[in-house]
Amino acid sequence: MHFSSTHRHDDGHTERTFTLGGIPGILWTPPTATPASPAPLILMGQPGGIGMARMHPRLAARARSAAAQGFASATLELPGAGDRTPLPGAAEARAELGRAIAAGAKPSEDTVDRLILPLLERAVPEWQAALDELLGLPELAERVGFSGGIIAIGVRLAAIEPRIAAAGLFAGSYVPRATMADARQVTIPLHMLLQWDDEGNDRAMALDLFDAFGSAEKTLYANLGGHTGVPAFAGEDAARFFARHLHPHLD
Amino acid sequence: MHFSSTHRHDDGHTERTFTLGGIPGILWTPPTATPASPAPLILMGQPGGIGMARMHPRLAARARSAAAQGFASATLELPGAGDRTPLPGAAEARAELGRAIAAGAKPSEDTVDRLILPLLERAVPEWQAALDELLGLPELAERVGFSGGIIAIGVRLAAIEPRIAAAGLFAGSYVPRATMADARQVTIPLHMLLQWDDEGNDRAMALDLFDAFGSAEKTLYANLGGHTGVPAFAGEDAARFFARHLHPHLD
Repeated sequence: MHFSSTHRHDDGHTERTFTLGGIPGILWTPPTATPASPAPLILMGQPGGIGMARMHPRLAARARSAAAQGFASATLELPGAGDRTPLPGAAEARAELGRAIAAGAKPSEDTVDRLILPLLERAVPEWQAALDELLGLPELAERVGFSGGIIAIGVRLAAIEPRIAAAGLFAGSYVPRATMADARQVTIPLHMLLQWDDEGNDRAMALDLFDAFGSAEKTLYANLGGHTGVPAFAGEDAARFFARHLHPHLD
Repeated sequence: MHFSSTHRHDDGHTERTFTLGGIPGILWTPPTATPASPAPLILMGQPGGIGMARMHPRLAARARSAAAQGFASATLELPGAGDRTPLPGAAEARAELGRAIAAGAKPSEDTVDRLILPLLERAVPEWQAALDELLGLPELAERVGFSGGIIAIGVRLAAIEPRIAAAGLFAGSYVPRATMADARQVTIPLHMLLQWDDEGNDRAMALDLFDAFGSAEKTLYANLGGHTGVPAFAGEDAARFFARHLHPHLD
């Protein structure tokens, strides 16, 4: 991992850009994070097809808020996003998905698989490699949460990555069949947001997914509104979920 | 309304029993409630068939916690509960419901109607009459929430009683057909708890009910577990919901 820039913000938190095997990423750390008092880390997922540069204002706002609560945050450019090589077949699958949604139809399982699986299979090992490097930093604690982004990636990481202790998922993207199987393997605490009228999601599938998780603590937090209408209080409740699980000594 | 006893608890909140037209009730007020600074009031619903005396420890614990946040709480003995005259047909309908649940079957709409409707039709005007009296007390503000209990009663009150500004509902009881129609008339902010594996409830019906509400702000908060397994953090999030809507000047 190679750090390429460091910016200290007015409120004291630090934003560092890095590359890892050519993949760009960002790490935000709170001023409280020191080797003597390492900070829990939240991996911030990203939506597909937007890219880290365009997502930066939203990611930075979430990271600032997390830093104020003592959390570090990190994100990675997704495969095929930003300046990374486009994934084969992704543009076609995305166009098919868009046509199905515009026609008020449910996209086929095959379309969803072709859109999400190539992304999932590349992204998961990349996030794990980033975790290897990030957790080598003395100011970060091995108490890791995963938050948001493409839900298939969050569910797979929650299922297979033992360093992730809690996951805040956003049921705001279509779910490939493989994700239902992953969900049954998940046993960590989960907090799943669902926007009840999300135009780019399938509510019944999201409810089935919630049902499938093997976790002993899981919360579905559904609010009225569309994909971008998550109310501010839902973000605050998600923050409390992470505080409960990643700052256990503060309970 | 006739107050029959007053008890001041160690933490400063006051518990008063009263009767209203022969119906027993309890009012808890925080020490902060004065005519100069009246407290918002939360009407605490009760489950059917238990009665206020047996429910007292749970109601008092919730009222104590609400008082610590500056809320007054009140409850009324439900029709047919405690020492009140049993409702005609209720015992038979309850036995039918129990048999259906024990057999793993969905109780018929007719059974649910015969169990809930007589209770609903008597309870709602009683709670409204109690509100008339309670809001005449100078230490109570006309900012009222309804919380818990039989969901059909909460939904009807939320639909027709303009003094109720926010409702925290618990989808933990069967819903008569009339409640679906009531739900469409509800426009106040709602926070609905659902226990995902509630043995005495119908999950699909609860989700349909959530969908039916006409409110612009509504949150479904579902947690893993059975009827009595509501996690402590769900109670805290419900408290924040009431604080947001009934203590708006503290925002």
